[in-house]
Amino acid sequence: MKVLIIGGGGVVGQKLGKALAARGELRGAPISRLVLADMAEAPVFDAPFPVETATCDISDPASMERVIDADTDVIFLLAAVVSAQAEEDFDLGYRINVDGTKNVLERCRALGTKPVVVFTSSIAVFGGEVPQPFTDHSALNPQISYGAQKAIGEILLNDYSRRGFVDGRGFRLPTISIRPGKPNRAASGFMSSIFREPLQGQSANCPVDRDFPHFYLSPRKCVENLIKGAELEQAALGKCPSMTMPGRVWTIGQMVDAMTAVAGPEPASRITWEPQPELAAILEGWRMDIRPEKALQLGLEADESFEDNIRYFLEDDIQR
Amino acid sequence: MKVLIIGGGGVVGQKLGKALAARGELRGAPISRLVLADMAEAPVFDAPFPVETATCDISDPASMERVIDADTDVIFLLAAVVSAQAEEDFDLGYRINVDGTKNVLERCRALGTKPVVVFTSSIAVFGGEVPQPFTDHSALNPQISYGAQKAIGEILLNDYSRRGFVDGRGFRLPTISIRPGKPNRAASGFMSSIFREPLQGQSANCPVDRDFPHFYLSPRKCVENLIKGAELEQAALGKCPSMTMPGRVWTIGQMVDAMTAVAGPEPASRITWEPQPELAAILEGWRMDIRPEKALQLGLEADESFEDNIRYFLEDDIQR
Repeated sequence: MKVLIIGGGGVVGQKLGKALAARGELRGAPISRLVLADMAEAPVFDAPFPVETATCDISDPASMERVIDADTDVIFLLAAVVSAQAEEDFDLGYRINVDGTKNVLERCRALGTKPVVVFTSSIAVFGGEVPQPFTDHSALNPQISYGAQKAIGEILLNDYSRRGFVDGRGFRLPTISIRPGKPNRAASGFMSSIFREPLQGQSANCPVDRDFPHFYLSPRKCVENLIKGAELEQAALGKCPSMTMPGRVWTIGQMVDAMTAVAGPEPASRITWEPQPELAAILEGWRMDIRPEKALQLGLEADESFEDNIRYFLEDDIQR
Repeated sequence: MKVLIIGGGGVVGQKLGKALAARGELRGAPISRLVLADMAEAPVFDAPFPVETATCDISDPASMERVIDADTDVIFLLAAVVSAQAEEDFDLGYRINVDGTKNVLERCRALGTKPVVVFTSSIAVFGGEVPQPFTDHSALNPQISYGAQKAIGEILLNDYSRRGFVDGRGFRLPTISIRPGKPNRAASGFMSSIFREPLQGQSANCPVDRDFPHFYLSPRKCVENLIKGAELEQAALGKCPSMTMPGRVWTIGQMVDAMTAVAGPEPASRITWEPQPELAAILEGWRMDIRPEKALQLGLEADESFEDNIRYFLEDDIQR
């Protein structure tokens, strides 16, 4: 069982790789090799199997030929240009998020080996004039280019799967919170920074009100769901292998209160509450009544509470 | 007002061009020039303005640079590789239907002139595991590559419109019946041939039962709707400028009875009723409870009855 993580140097890619190392197997077979592919050399870690790195450019078909070979059994496709950046650089977003996804699928098609491809989409596909709740049967009417690019990725994945070129499964990720490390270019970055920084003694700004609702998932549960997603049998996926990954809706205020419940009152006092006009256009389009029923039925899970997310962060990500 | 029809040599393109010639104006301004662009030289016709032809390859960006210029006010993008052909030739379908659509949009973006782009999608975007009825808010879960390609085209059109690169409006065409001329490569081709051929003394085969329902529109109403679609104000389109064009659902049996009501019993007796295994996989995925509410509210229309379609064909398309 040879596994490839494209975007293996990112927050989710690293956590996924370490979770695979802890398991040692996937889809019922021992993992014989894990490749962490990313734009820059990805950090490696101990594992009961060889962990290799590969630098790659997903937008270059030749680069995808080098990292995906006939032995690649499972591909996690996590690489993406995220929301604020894709809105700012239109060409870059389409090149990485659409052309890049197609390059991966085309490489698999050329090989003829039908690998499992786990694709990460985003709840940014939802919005516009489609009424809530957003179910697995709701139209995708994204109001940012990142969402449009992910919606196209889903349709490609579904069609390449239907044609038998890959065994694809796509999951629309909730906002992943609390992300460790540095902020990325996602408009939802504050959903991590208002916890991550205050829990480590620093201040952070929240650009929305306390009653702003958000559909979130911890990195730990996200990784568990990606692995469960990889292990699903293709027949269980039905005619639409792209679906929403489970998450839970809480308001920012409830999440901040959860931080206080776990870590005391100090961190919350370090949050400032200033609107950020450059994010307003993106944030005002967000609606969060999202029902991930298909994925729940397939056994994927949301966090029980945001208190758990705070604890996971303190356990998994604080350097001690 | 300079108008370009890409796919101007096709059945709908020719009828649209002639309808524009009869009107002489579009969006409140006299038409000063009409260009009929297609792979081969398109037939021209009399008009109160110059009608030019251009041969082009929609999959070649340089070719799109030649046919779309800074004076082009309205583009009808009708060119497509249709269903059975796109299913048979995977690469060709993506090259024409996806890359070609993007080439048109990119050319408009490069010009910076924000032309009106009327894009023809298809009801082939609907299906899979999405429950009926299919409304403007239903997920697109196409089960043929043609549908996937058109769904991607819609998302591109919506995103390029939102970004202000084009003033786009997309319409999912019902099955157009009765199409004159030769059969095309659409799986729904029988929906024209079982009327067109028998009304002209020839036999034709119907691969489905009399109780098979179909969502149809006459070429005449389709052209009227495309013109109305081009004339809509952008503000009226809301946050999702792609929608289903009105059509009506009748069973094949009802349509055949309509032919008999208008043209007597002879034509219906020329229909054979043999299943075609090569179409079965496509046809079994079709479901037709489609509700084009947004377009109806915007003033687009379906045919009143299939008797009308028979009469339109006899009036418009039989050579006398």
